[in-house]
Amino acid sequence: MKKFVNDPKQFVPEMLTGIALANPDTLKYEPKYNLIMRADAPRADKVSIVQGSGSGHEPAHVMVVGKGMLDGACPGDVFAAPPMDYVYETVKLLRSDKGVLLLVNNYTGDRMAFDMAKEMSEAEGIKVATLFINDDVAVQDSTYTVGRRGVAGNFFVMKCVGAAAEEGAELDEVVRIGEKVNSVTRSMGIALTACTPPAKGSPLFELGEDEMEVGVGIHGEPGRRRATLVTADEIVDELLGAVVPDLPYASGDRVALMINGLGGTPISELYLLFGIAHRKLADQGITVARSYVGEYCTSLEMAGASLTLVKLDDEIERLLEAPAEIAYRVF
Amino acid sequence: MKKFVNDPKQFVPEMLTGIALANPDTLKYEPKYNLIMRADAPRADKVSIVQGSGSGHEPAHVMVVGKGMLDGACPGDVFAAPPMDYVYETVKLLRSDKGVLLLVNNYTGDRMAFDMAKEMSEAEGIKVATLFINDDVAVQDSTYTVGRRGVAGNFFVMKCVGAAAEEGAELDEVVRIGEKVNSVTRSMGIALTACTPPAKGSPLFELGEDEMEVGVGIHGEPGRRRATLVTADEIVDELLGAVVPDLPYASGDRVALMINGLGGTPISELYLLFGIAHRKLADQGITVARSYVGEYCTSLEMAGASLTLVKLDDEIERLLEAPAEIAYRVF
Repeated sequence: MKKFVNDPKQFVPEMLTGIALANPDTLKYEPKYNLIMRADAPRADKVSIVQGSGSGHEPAHVMVVGKGMLDGACPGDVFAAPPMDYVYETVKLLRSDKGVLLLVNNYTGDRMAFDMAKEMSEAEGIKVATLFINDDVAVQDSTYTVGRRGVAGNFFVMKCVGAAAEEGAELDEVVRIGEKVNSVTRSMGIALTACTPPAKGSPLFELGEDEMEVGVGIHGEPGRRRATLVTADEIVDELLGAVVPDLPYASGDRVALMINGLGGTPISELYLLFGIAHRKLADQGITVARSYVGEYCTSLEMAGASLTLVKLDDEIERLLEAPAEIAYRVF
Repeated sequence: MKKFVNDPKQFVPEMLTGIALANPDTLKYEPKYNLIMRADAPRADKVSIVQGSGSGHEPAHVMVVGKGMLDGACPGDVFAAPPMDYVYETVKLLRSDKGVLLLVNNYTGDRMAFDMAKEMSEAEGIKVATLFINDDVAVQDSTYTVGRRGVAGNFFVMKCVGAAAEEGAELDEVVRIGEKVNSVTRSMGIALTACTPPAKGSPLFELGEDEMEVGVGIHGEPGRRRATLVTADEIVDELLGAVVPDLPYASGDRVALMINGLGGTPISELYLLFGIAHRKLADQGITVARSYVGEYCTSLEMAGASLTLVKLDDEIERLLEAPAEIAYRVF
């Protein structure tokens, strides 16, 4: 296992310690619950936005806590849903009179933890809503999922609900916006290699030297098929061929296009894919009005990429443009 | 070779096309010279800042063109210095009455291209200065270098000269600042895997399943030694043990700490390293006042990381804090 790691069991806490030390003025770290939260949260005048998931998908979600995005993130161990009590304690710490919105990528373990935490929080009189994200068009059900999986498209939901909450929107309105963004967002990914969870120490699956997994999940779940590695052009055709007809996106649409790296693929290759996808969308009369290239939702060191489209309207575009400040940054 | 690529010979142009398409309002792309430049450059009221190097180190340098950073970047092919005429044409296109500053990481091929381009530009009456960056403490001379190599510490030079130029500083002053930043910046890296240039199609070197290369170069150059992979704590000791005594950084110093990913290492591991290094520096009385964690100067998909320290003073800190807007971004 070729990783920078001490005791694999301490991988997540040591990562979270690093995030907190890099952001002493803006973030707080509560080790008992793996919680990274805004230093200025909760605020009585805004809905608190929370997401948790397994670790191993960074920057999602612990590195996107901050102004205009999440108020808190409470991850589980690598590829494991957060324990229900982590979520429950997080909700209590981020309790606001305006309510708490829990974002959940659609995996069975995550849903269970968040549903139970919601129930327990409501029993204490806390106003809580949940919103499930399921942008991955690859497969209907999956290894850890009933229904579609939630993957990198989740970023757009976080960004829009985060902006709306920052502006003071009520909980119902924030939920409406999040559901709307989720409803116009579609993704699919391709893996070129597997990945190795630190505590497991060996790859999650095997992929031959000339193979790729089309429609891979972010925990290495099987996709639509195993295929021979083809050119970048053909890969983009495969991704657009699955994503575009699904909503469908159509000639005349304005979209956000994201090429998300799965962890081990350099950004040079992501921009190469972006350029190809941009051109092929233009050929279909679809205009890329907003561009996202980089790592948003990863699968440890997996080599691979996913493509996400969001159909834009004035409301979504305005919320995507709103300022935000998070730990994951260049400067 | 597991990459997203079409014809390997078109890897760099296709990447640059993607960068240009993602930034239609702020960047211009001149395919003849691999040039990515600010759409508003050159400006008569500011020194133009240019860097070029081999490709394969993205986001350096083509993705850090923009306000407060570079005015233009003219890379060569993967791991190959830009041809002299690319640099020369770039200087002509970015000619400003206030002058042009050429930043060059210290590699023999790059120095040759930039020195010749400078000479030819001066013969045409263009005011040009060059500044060589050599922050890597690993080895004195290297495969492609006389003297020390320039690696990720280069980011801090770009940031500070970019900010100074944006404020209208004269060429001499911009050079003074860049030389000062370079003089207080030190780096060293460790590779866990090799990398594969697209046109070569096979790894640049071989590294055993339990081996790491201590002091690796960003083109896979040998470092100080090949060693058995150890814990993250021990790796940080090794890096700090080389970097701290070199300047030296001492108790009472305020520093910027960068943990830079070499391309294939997930940001979770980088934050883990950051947390460890932060604590070990505090133990030595050195205060981390500014934090940089992510990919700044990579080596294709190499798994690995480098650590950079910059000794801060008020001037450097102010320039690092100045706003900047580049293609490489989250939102």
